[in-house]
Amino acid sequence: MKIICSRNNLVKGVSIVSKAVPSKTTMPILECILIDASLDTIKLTANDMELGIETTIEGEVVEHGILALNAKIFSEIVRKLPDSDVVIDAESDNQALITCEKAKFNIAAQSGEDFSYLPAIEKENFFTISEFTLKEAIRQTIFSIADNDSNKMMTGELFEITDDKLRVVSLDGHRISIRKIELKDSYEPRKVIVPGKTLQEISKIIGGEAEENVDISFTKNHIVFEFDKTVVVSRLIEGDYFKIDQMLSSDYDTKITVNKRELLDCIDRATLLIKEGDKKPIIIDIGDESMQLKIKSQIGSMDEDIFISKEGKDLLIGFNPKFLIDALRVIDDEEVELYFMNAKAPCFIKDKQQSYIYLILPVNFNAVV
Amino acid sequence: MKIICSRNNLVKGVSIVSKAVPSKTTMPILECILIDASLDTIKLTANDMELGIETTIEGEVVEHGILALNAKIFSEIVRKLPDSDVVIDAESDNQALITCEKAKFNIAAQSGEDFSYLPAIEKENFFTISEFTLKEAIRQTIFSIADNDSNKMMTGELFEITDDKLRVVSLDGHRISIRKIELKDSYEPRKVIVPGKTLQEISKIIGGEAEENVDISFTKNHIVFEFDKTVVVSRLIEGDYFKIDQMLSSDYDTKITVNKRELLDCIDRATLLIKEGDKKPIIIDIGDESMQLKIKSQIGSMDEDIFISKEGKDLLIGFNPKFLIDALRVIDDEEVELYFMNAKAPCFIKDKQQSYIYLILPVNFNAVV
Repeated sequence: MKIICSRNNLVKGVSIVSKAVPSKTTMPILECILIDASLDTIKLTANDMELGIETTIEGEVVEHGILALNAKIFSEIVRKLPDSDVVIDAESDNQALITCEKAKFNIAAQSGEDFSYLPAIEKENFFTISEFTLKEAIRQTIFSIADNDSNKMMTGELFEITDDKLRVVSLDGHRISIRKIELKDSYEPRKVIVPGKTLQEISKIIGGEAEENVDISFTKNHIVFEFDKTVVVSRLIEGDYFKIDQMLSSDYDTKITVNKRELLDCIDRATLLIKEGDKKPIIIDIGDESMQLKIKSQIGSMDEDIFISKEGKDLLIGFNPKFLIDALRVIDDEEVELYFMNAKAPCFIKDKQQSYIYLILPVNFNAVV
Repeated sequence: MKIICSRNNLVKGVSIVSKAVPSKTTMPILECILIDASLDTIKLTANDMELGIETTIEGEVVEHGILALNAKIFSEIVRKLPDSDVVIDAESDNQALITCEKAKFNIAAQSGEDFSYLPAIEKENFFTISEFTLKEAIRQTIFSIADNDSNKMMTGELFEITDDKLRVVSLDGHRISIRKIELKDSYEPRKVIVPGKTLQEISKIIGGEAEENVDISFTKNHIVFEFDKTVVVSRLIEGDYFKIDQMLSSDYDTKITVNKRELLDCIDRATLLIKEGDKKPIIIDIGDESMQLKIKSQIGSMDEDIFISKEGKDLLIGFNPKFLIDALRVIDDEEVELYFMNAKAPCFIKDKQQSYIYLILPVNFNAVV
C-alpha cells in the first residue's frame, strides 16, 4: 500500500476516527487505525467493537492495500509533520514508512487483515437533523445520564421518534432531562437507547453548523450517524426505557418566574461553601415577590434574596444545588419558569411549548436551618 | 474592622498575594490572607516564611482593624461575587461577614495577631529593570534549574550585578543557561542566589509591560521586588554559587548556523518516538551543507536532513533532545549559532554579543545507530 495526502487532511481524519480507539484494551489491533486503500479512496477506520468510526480523506492511492497503525503514535506523528504532502508506504506487513518533506519516520505496523471492519448497514429509514441541533440536544441532556454501570439503561439516552418529533431523554434517578425537537419530515415511530459515550464522541466530531446535516438510521442493534465523509456506527443499549410520561405531571401549587442568570449565579456562589462529596442542600424559601436562597456548611453560611414573580402558595424546599446548576446552564431563555407541588414532590423547569422539561427531585433538609 | 472596596480590586489583590500561600502546611494561619486596615489603607498579605507578598488595594476603611481569612475560601468567594462593592466586616475575632449586593457570606476568620508580617526591609541600593525584561529573563533561564532539593543551590538562580550589567544564571548539572541584561545605571557589584520558586511566582504576578518597572533590593538574607502597589520579599539561598566562568570556553572546532524554527520542529518531531523516562539521544551528524538528525527507539526510527552553513570539522554528536528544545524555545533569533569542540565536550548556543549562552552537555551513544 502506498498513499499520498495532505498533512491537514490526514490530521483531520485521524482525529475523527481516534474517538473510537479504546484507551485501554488487551487487543493491540483495537489500538490501531486501519488505512484502507484497497479501492481508489483512502478510508480511515477505528473500532472498539461498541463504537466504530470510518472517514474518507482526500488523497492519491499510488498502490492498493491496507495497513493498520497504532493510533496514538500515528496521530502524534502526523500532528507534528510540516504542512505538506505526506506519503505513507507499507514497506512490509509490519513496517510503515511515513515521509513528509525531509522527515522520514519508520514505525511498526500491523496487518490490516486482523482488523474488525464496521458492520455493514443498509441505509434505509433514516431521518435528518442539522449538526447544530444534534449537538445542542446532546449538550442539553447528557449531564443527567448515570456514569456508573449499575443500571446500564441509565448510561444511555432515549431517542424517540413520533411523526415529525424527536424526543431526547436522559435520567439518573434524581432528575430527568428532556428536549423535544421538530423534524422537517414525519417518520415511522421508533424508540432506541443510545450509549452516552457514543453521544459524547459524536458531539466532539460533528462541526455544529446549522447548514450541515446528519443522517441517522437504525438497525435492530445499531444506530448509524452519517455526515460529511464520516460514518459512525454504535451498538444500542438493549431493553425498554423507563416509562417517563407517567412521571411528568402538569399540576402545580406554586409557580415562579425568575431571571435565569441571577438564579444561576446565586446558586453558583452558594456551592463555594460545599466541599466535594458533601451533600448540603440549598434551601429555597419562596415568598411573594422574592425568594431567599440559603446554604450552611462547616465552612460558613450564605444567603441571598432574588426577585421573582409568583403564582400560588409560599414554599420552603431544598435541592442538590448541582442539579439546579446543570439544568439552568443549558437553558438559553432569559427568564425561566419553575413549577412546584410541595417540598417532597419534584420541581419542573420547563417552557410553555415544553421544548425542554427538567425534572429535579428535592432533598430532605432540617427545616430549622 | 470594616472595609469597602470594589470586587475587581479585591480579586486582583487576592490573586497576587495568594501566590505566597503554601499549598500544604500544618499551620492554619499560614493558609490565611491578612487584611490589614489598621491605618487608612487596605493591605493584603500572605507569607509562607520563605516568600511573602504584600499588596495595597484601593478602598475605604470604615473601621480600623486587622483580620485573617482562609485564602482559598476567601479567594473563591470574591471571584464569584457580582461586579460591585464588597463590604468585609469582622463581626468578631473569629467571624467575618462578606456582603456584595444581596449576597451575604458568613465565614470563619482568624485573629490577625497570630499572623507573621513580612520582615521590615529598608529600601536602599536598589536597582531597576522593566517588568518585561525581568519576566523574559526568568522565562529564558528557569527551565534549567534542578527541581529536586539534593543540591539546594541548583534550585535557585544566580543574579549577579557588575556595574551596569545583570547576569542571570541557572544550571542543573547537564546544562547552563545564561542571560545578560544591560541596566540603565551602574550599581555596586552583588551576587545573590534567588529561589526558583520565588522567580516562578514573581513571573506570574508581574504584568510584563515594558513601561512598568520593578525595583529590586537586597538585605543580607532577602531579596525584595517592588512594583505597582506590591512588595514581594523572599529569602535568598545561602552559599557561593558555582564558578561558571571557568566552564565557558570560546574555542571551537565546528560552528554551524541553522534556522531555529526548522531545527526546533525537527527535534520536536523526533521526540515523539521517545516514551517518558526513556533516555534515547538524538544523534546529529554534521556534514558540509546539511546535518542529519536521527533517533531510534522501540517505537520506530526517524531521520531528517536540515540545511546548515558550517565552519570547521564534520562531527557526530548525541544530545538529550529535551535540553536542545528547552534552549531553542526561548531564543527569539531566526538563525542560531551552535559551537562544538568534539563529541564529548559541551555544545554552546550563543549570539555574538553573548546576551545569551546555553551550554549543553552531549550524551554518549552507540556510534552504529
